Amino acid sequence: MEKSRLDQQFDFFREIDKEKFIGRQTYLSDAKRKENDAEHAWHMAIMTILLSEYANENIDVLKTVTMLLIHDIVEIDAGDTYAYDEEGKKTQHQRETLAADRIFGMLPDDQAKKMRALWEEFEANETAEAHFAHAMDNIQPIMLNAATDGKAWEEHSVHLQQILKRNQITPLGSEELWSYSFEHFIRPNVENGKIEQ
Amino acid sequence: MEKSRLDQQFDFFREIDKEKFIGRQTYLSDAKRKENDAEHAWHMAIMTILLSEYANENIDVLKTVTMLLIHDIVEIDAGDTYAYDEEGKKTQHQRETLAADRIFGMLPDDQAKKMRALWEEFEANETAEAHFAHAMDNIQPIMLNAATDGKAWEEHSVHLQQILKRNQITPLGSEELWSYSFEHFIRPNVENGKIEQ
Repeated sequence: MEKSRLDQQFDFFREIDKEKFIGRQTYLSDAKRKENDAEHAWHMAIMTILLSEYANENIDVLKTVTMLLIHDIVEIDAGDTYAYDEEGKKTQHQRETLAADRIFGMLPDDQAKKMRALWEEFEANETAEAHFAHAMDNIQPIMLNAATDGKAWEEHSVHLQQILKRNQITPLGSEELWSYSFEHFIRPNVENGKIEQ
Repeated sequence: MEKSRLDQQFDFFREIDKEKFIGRQTYLSDAKRKENDAEHAWHMAIMTILLSEYANENIDVLKTVTMLLIHDIVEIDAGDTYAYDEEGKKTQHQRETLAADRIFGMLPDDQAKKMRALWEEFEANETAEAHFAHAMDNIQPIMLNAATDGKAWEEHSVHLQQILKRNQITPLGSEELWSYSFEHFIRPNVENGKIEQ
């Protein structure tokens, strides 16, 4: 029997519940538990709504929020690839593309195409919305790492050059937010040795 | 020294990280761990984006998503009041109002007023967006409870009448989604005894 449109949509909602089990390397503000992808996405969605005024270019806020809410869903199959895991990053794109086929493919065709296109737009990082979404995706963990006295940076012996390389794209979304994050979150942790030079 | 606008905004973002520690009574799809408020809000935001086509009245999707993303922030101070905790519900409004004063008050004035107004609109439940947000707030845990074979309903000996009373407002947001949820999630769990009659 053909599934109804609502059956397909609720199949997708049940499936993405698994994103709550995908752990990240960022500690929450209690510095004990690490956050998961769903918590991370929720946090960035609110940040986007309240920080869109600093975007270099005008952005469509709902589109940016949607992009951020769904962009890690592929990790249900592909797993989280840590920002500084150079080996994992080699196979990341292939693993995530297969995951996108399967998971977005659970939705009715029109919505599957729309969500898949948003995920690809995020990955390609060529639009104002994708630029701002990437700025959020980088700044949110930097904010939490600073709030926990650089614990995650210290545990992974992260070097300033790694952070700067990853954040080359952050000012494309917002020069003002990148500048604030560098001065308030990164520089103090370089000075106190939590980020290696 | 006066805090800058960005200082106020990031103070708020660090504060709301605590929402990730507010536990709910709903089990995740693995039926082991219960979800927290941030995960719940993330899930409902995606559901809203993909289910707005079933709203009784046209809704502003970004407004509804924002309402859902921020509506549980008051629980950072006031705690989660379980849907069927009649004692807790007596003091819930007062506890949550004080929390709204403090937490939304961390934002710059214009944003504090806007977020506070959205929370009050959700609480008053008189607009199309609030109606749909409440439908999501009720249907998301019903979906997960059904996905875990009624575990949370069984543990709390929930009666059908309690569910129906709480969900009197759900069809105000979407008659179609309420009807689907009743037939697919509630009725089977009444028939198999997980929901008491």
